[in-house]
Amino acid sequence: MANITKKVSWSSRGDDSALTGEGTPLLNGTEIPKPSRQLSGSGSVFRIGRFSTVDLEDDITSEEDPIRGRPKEIPHNEKLLSLKYESLDYDNIENQLFLEEERRMSHMGFRCLEISRWVICGLIGILTGLIACFIDIMVEKLAGYKYQVIKENIEKFTEVGGLSISLILWAVLNCAFVLVGGVMVAFFEPIAAGSGIPQIKCYLNGVKIPRVVRLKTLVVKVIGVICSVAGGLAVGKEGPMIHSGAVVAAGVSQGRSTSLKRDFKMFEYFRRDTEKRDFVSAGAAAGVSAAFGAPVGGVLFSLEEGASFWNQMLTWRIFFASMISTFTLNFFLSIYHGKPGDLSNPGLINFGRFESDSVAYYYYEIPLFMCMGALGGLLGALFNSLNYWLTIFRIRYVHRPCLQVIEALLVAAVTAAVSFTMIYFSNDCQPLGPEHNEEYPLQLFCADGEYNAMATAFFNTPERSVRSLFHNQPGSYNPLTLGLFTLTYFFLACWTYGLAVSAGVFIPSLLIGAAWGRLCGILLASFTPTSPIWADPGKYALIGAAAQLGGIVRMTLSLTVIMVEATGNVTYGLPIMLVLMIAKIVGDYFQEGLYDIHIKLQSVPFLHWEAPATSHWLTAREVMSSPVTCFNRIEKVGTIVDVLSNTSTNHNGFPVVVQVLDSDEPAKLCGLILRSQLIVLLKHKVFVELARSRLSQRKLQLKDFRDAYPRFPPIQSIHVSQDERECMMDLTEFMNPTPYTVPQDTSLPRVFKLFRALGLRHLVVADDVNRVIGLVTRKDLARYHLGKHGLEELQLAQT
Amino acid sequence: MANITKKVSWSSRGDDSALTGEGTPLLNGTEIPKPSRQLSGSGSVFRIGRFSTVDLEDDITSEEDPIRGRPKEIPHNEKLLSLKYESLDYDNIENQLFLEEERRMSHMGFRCLEISRWVICGLIGILTGLIACFIDIMVEKLAGYKYQVIKENIEKFTEVGGLSISLILWAVLNCAFVLVGGVMVAFFEPIAAGSGIPQIKCYLNGVKIPRVVRLKTLVVKVIGVICSVAGGLAVGKEGPMIHSGAVVAAGVSQGRSTSLKRDFKMFEYFRRDTEKRDFVSAGAAAGVSAAFGAPVGGVLFSLEEGASFWNQMLTWRIFFASMISTFTLNFFLSIYHGKPGDLSNPGLINFGRFESDSVAYYYYEIPLFMCMGALGGLLGALFNSLNYWLTIFRIRYVHRPCLQVIEALLVAAVTAAVSFTMIYFSNDCQPLGPEHNEEYPLQLFCADGEYNAMATAFFNTPERSVRSLFHNQPGSYNPLTLGLFTLTYFFLACWTYGLAVSAGVFIPSLLIGAAWGRLCGILLASFTPTSPIWADPGKYALIGAAAQLGGIVRMTLSLTVIMVEATGNVTYGLPIMLVLMIAKIVGDYFQEGLYDIHIKLQSVPFLHWEAPATSHWLTAREVMSSPVTCFNRIEKVGTIVDVLSNTSTNHNGFPVVVQVLDSDEPAKLCGLILRSQLIVLLKHKVFVELARSRLSQRKLQLKDFRDAYPRFPPIQSIHVSQDERECMMDLTEFMNPTPYTVPQDTSLPRVFKLFRALGLRHLVVADDVNRVIGLVTRKDLARYHLGKHGLEELQLAQT
Repeated sequence: MANITKKVSWSSRGDDSALTGEGTPLLNGTEIPKPSRQLSGSGSVFRIGRFSTVDLEDDITSEEDPIRGRPKEIPHNEKLLSLKYESLDYDNIENQLFLEEERRMSHMGFRCLEISRWVICGLIGILTGLIACFIDIMVEKLAGYKYQVIKENIEKFTEVGGLSISLILWAVLNCAFVLVGGVMVAFFEPIAAGSGIPQIKCYLNGVKIPRVVRLKTLVVKVIGVICSVAGGLAVGKEGPMIHSGAVVAAGVSQGRSTSLKRDFKMFEYFRRDTEKRDFVSAGAAAGVSAAFGAPVGGVLFSLEEGASFWNQMLTWRIFFASMISTFTLNFFLSIYHGKPGDLSNPGLINFGRFESDSVAYYYYEIPLFMCMGALGGLLGALFNSLNYWLTIFRIRYVHRPCLQVIEALLVAAVTAAVSFTMIYFSNDCQPLGPEHNEEYPLQLFCADGEYNAMATAFFNTPERSVRSLFHNQPGSYNPLTLGLFTLTYFFLACWTYGLAVSAGVFIPSLLIGAAWGRLCGILLASFTPTSPIWADPGKYALIGAAAQLGGIVRMTLSLTVIMVEATGNVTYGLPIMLVLMIAKIVGDYFQEGLYDIHIKLQSVPFLHWEAPATSHWLTAREVMSSPVTCFNRIEKVGTIVDVLSNTSTNHNGFPVVVQVLDSDEPAKLCGLILRSQLIVLLKHKVFVELARSRLSQRKLQLKDFRDAYPRFPPIQSIHVSQDERECMMDLTEFMNPTPYTVPQDTSLPRVFKLFRALGLRHLVVADDVNRVIGLVTRKDLARYHLGKHGLEELQLAQT
Repeated sequence: MANITKKVSWSSRGDDSALTGEGTPLLNGTEIPKPSRQLSGSGSVFRIGRFSTVDLEDDITSEEDPIRGRPKEIPHNEKLLSLKYESLDYDNIENQLFLEEERRMSHMGFRCLEISRWVICGLIGILTGLIACFIDIMVEKLAGYKYQVIKENIEKFTEVGGLSISLILWAVLNCAFVLVGGVMVAFFEPIAAGSGIPQIKCYLNGVKIPRVVRLKTLVVKVIGVICSVAGGLAVGKEGPMIHSGAVVAAGVSQGRSTSLKRDFKMFEYFRRDTEKRDFVSAGAAAGVSAAFGAPVGGVLFSLEEGASFWNQMLTWRIFFASMISTFTLNFFLSIYHGKPGDLSNPGLINFGRFESDSVAYYYYEIPLFMCMGALGGLLGALFNSLNYWLTIFRIRYVHRPCLQVIEALLVAAVTAAVSFTMIYFSNDCQPLGPEHNEEYPLQLFCADGEYNAMATAFFNTPERSVRSLFHNQPGSYNPLTLGLFTLTYFFLACWTYGLAVSAGVFIPSLLIGAAWGRLCGILLASFTPTSPIWADPGKYALIGAAAQLGGIVRMTLSLTVIMVEATGNVTYGLPIMLVLMIAKIVGDYFQEGLYDIHIKLQSVPFLHWEAPATSHWLTAREVMSSPVTCFNRIEKVGTIVDVLSNTSTNHNGFPVVVQVLDSDEPAKLCGLILRSQLIVLLKHKVFVELARSRLSQRKLQLKDFRDAYPRFPPIQSIHVSQDERECMMDLTEFMNPTPYTVPQDTSLPRVFKLFRALGLRHLVVADDVNRVIGLVTRKDLARYHLGKHGLEELQLAQT
């Protein structure tokens, strides 16, 4: 049997004596605040005040509290890092139980696992495609019904006068839809607000955003997005598909639903963060694929946002899920539209076909495209800045659910009013020819056989408007219409993003860009009326759309591929790439991308691809948290319960040390154990009753840990009697015996690379005799970022 | 000053006493052979006899020996791992010099570096595009001239009789071209043989293949491929583009040419393996992009084959290089063809446009496609098996350059003869209509206004034949012609791959597949003559081509995207993906992919994505090499020279240890130093002359290391006098002070993941007091693989 060891905690000074070194109660987790530092480096400014650096559990006591995750909890300062977000374990916990299971498994067993992975990816694809199909049909039905009612009403009142009644009808219908969506989101599942892309980015990055991949979130998201789009808001239904796909993946891959309390006893092997993340990547890719009909773009999106470690088989599976997803959508939509076998609906948004013969570009147009890219970057930065201030305002003043719903209703009403006004005062009448297949042409005050062009843009779902801007004949819009539309829609879209409704920003961005892009095309054509080159403003609409979207979201490779796949034409690859690149460079000069802004405002400890360039002079010694609360390999139950119960620290990972009894050798690191594992051990009372000098430790299976995953109960819910507190607990079997360690002189970029490449949660800093002297967690690395004045250090928020 | 320490070496038994433990001269590197093991695990069979496990330098003494790299050096047994291949250092050596430089650099400095990276990627794209353009034009000119001459000759002799003269002319012309190409490759640069894709795969994987990215290789490759294609061999010019792009990248990024002895004093920061690899990825992607007009496919190829760590900015740069490359090719080819502004030549191979309206597929065709995928997998496996035996034969018997040239000439003559015979005996005459734009229609014995259909396939460059099979009208070929063509071309292509000529296997594979695919289409149509569905055999040709190519090379995602981009139509994404997947599954059941076979036959220590599934019961203790030759932090020059000169071991990396004088504490690991660094130190005589009790250590710059990179001189070329041998050398500044370490109980998959994710070359295994007990190198990990009977261990070859 292993030697019984004393309890020790290591302070950063390396004193190996003390339970309560320097009078500070280390064991109960109250830590010695590090002295504030003012480090002088090459042009670096450091913020002071780092109070606590440990990896905190999100508020585990309020498991079923629907209030949680509300914006009011968000510290409204981007110079903070929140401690409420937990990290995910993307490094396998290779403890004895795990290794025994792996060693027991035969070659055939691994092959079966591989096959189940493929089956799951297929299921993810099918379900995501079905959800996309459902959203598409519902939106078409509801919006169609709405536009039909309003059109009839407008036609009735255009002749008899009293169009204000139509306006009121429009506004009321919009508000009704938005009310349903807003109430669902604000009162039932606040995390379902917005597009969900920032949340999925964080999840793939390794941050556990509470409740983000739950069934309830999915239901609210789907209903919410249908209501928002049908409610005529300046939103798209594409962004939320990515979130939906991710939730589907997280659900299917676990073979059970915790919300529905159903366990199908399948896929139990996949019940850990590493495997789940892989499936969530596939789900997000399937979502992109269904949204844009872009399977390769979906794979690249997942990789660009998530994968730190590229694995060939994984990528292939992700691609499979994406393909199945777009195929399913296409298949069912073709049946729904009564044209089975038709392959023209690969995605929710369909840009229509750009035939390379008719709409080719010329080399000398490329500089023009690049200028449009710069304009897109500028407008994108403006959009993001406005939205940034608006979000700050919302965090401060609009954080109660009812206020959020009221704001959503206000936006819905204003959108209807503005649209109506624009249409009403527009006198851009276009002939209603056979080539114009407008779904709901509004005649209003135009002559018979003509329709109001402004209504093409406003009186339509945004997807249709985008397609009209890309493909309508030259001359379908006059410049004034487009200019006014751009202006109003820009502000409407900016106001709408961040509301407590479920909605995406892709389509509004594309629409704004397509409008001003087409305007550019028309203006160019008017300068050189004789040249046939500028004849088609559709390609300028496409370039403008790419520029605007790139300027707002700042995605790169994946967005290029998504755009290319959505246009179905590889010819535009080069100009789209150049435009996105310029838009990103120009935009980044002024303001970050929209998703990054929202991630920052939530104070999420997000790890970028590399450590800041000028951070080589920081070492593990400076970034690590210390002192570290360690456990002995055989530890008293009471001590464990006390440490876990300490709400002021809430450590999540504990190095396990071993010290030979009656020896003055320093205690050595011998493993790492997680809070969640200890909770399971306590719950199953895996104690060694030393007092009775017999071993009654119950044999625990890996299954017990998997059953508890991912909602481990809080420590408060586990009752430990006074007798049991005196027992000992042997951690040997459950701890990870080979945690990664670094010496304390390791530079920050090196620590960062190790941490990021392997998806770690805790990295132990050890000295040259293998004593624990610190622990590096996600927050310790995420704190450093490159600001205007060089390297800056973020504060850690206490909320 | 640091404490002077004793020299120690750690044996795996952990005895901390011994310089020469157990009477074995550890210092000079002769190692105690580990006892052969017969490990009993879950169904695992172990091969015995592991003689040496250290990381060996390739034959550094024969730097300018053109004979090197010849097949005769290859151990002709795939159950061996060669020790002649060195690893690349994909982990930055963060020693004091490096850190000082990084810390000195300002934020602006890093920005300038980033800009230079973009400039280099742009240059890579432009140069790769130009090379592709050159190859294309030269092949077109030369092949055009050849076909013109033969055509006139055939026409002349068809009427008067005596066609055997035409045959001889054809064979002689072919042989002349192949002679030039074969002599270049066989005598001047054997590494330029074949497509170069296996070599680039190895390079990106981290294996240093000697001479693979040299200027001379590029020149031979380009001339070689022009000769092979013009010489009428069953080869393509696409594969070699990937190699060419990689060489361009390796050259441009270093800002100098070692071969031409020109140093432009630019891009000195990039003179290390990590940075160079990133550019080589970009070059390979640019090559794919130029070859197939597939920029996204290029990026995915690079990532699939190489990148273990995905970095967003890097990927974006790779994409930029790819885009520029295809754009450059397109731009210059459009000028060459007299149609500036035309965008229809994005790649060397152009599949022609598949319009989705005319050639759509139907859902119920998918099972048919999948059957074709299975057939492709079977035929691919047959191809690979035949080529495997042929390669073994070549390694044994055809390893002298002149024999290789003779074999190439034989193949050229046989190809001409077979082609001629097939055309001669074919009586498939087709009307020469306006829609048939055959370049060199052969009338032969057909009626006037008709041409010989067999000649369309044989009397053409393979690229044109592929396009004809995809797009010619239904009825252009009769089934017998296609069947015979498939059969003969299959064996010709199989014989040709592996010859000492520079050539690729992509196009022959596509051609074989397109032929039998079209045959399938025709047969299907003949079964259901009334249905218009099977009317177009072109899509079956496409599916067949994908199936055959997938069955031979077994690429997955990247190949799907390349095919989709080359067809310019995203509609075929799903069937192509399914076909490639089935082809891979079926093919893998019988035989590995062609590139993997050749990598294995070269005994390259190639690391796959993950450790074998059933390897959890192996730990670092079992896989590591031990004992390890260590150096002290301040080491005697004589000792270093002796260790480096020991040709029987040729260690490449040495842990550096420190031990306090007059203390019985064990010596601790404090760093890692490479052979190449020690060589530079010795060359610059960076010695501390302790005898005179003064410090005369010359201050060495990072520049000195960069100037020596990548061709470090062999130790034999450095003269060290007897006096100097008594000096000491202080390694503190130069060693990597924070090498990654693992405990000895770490499981093999965990070691593997760390090693692969970070691109390591040496991983130190340390015990719980930080003593060095072993070293894990690439060969230690590559030895384990999953064979038919479970986990197998490869032997290490002594060659």
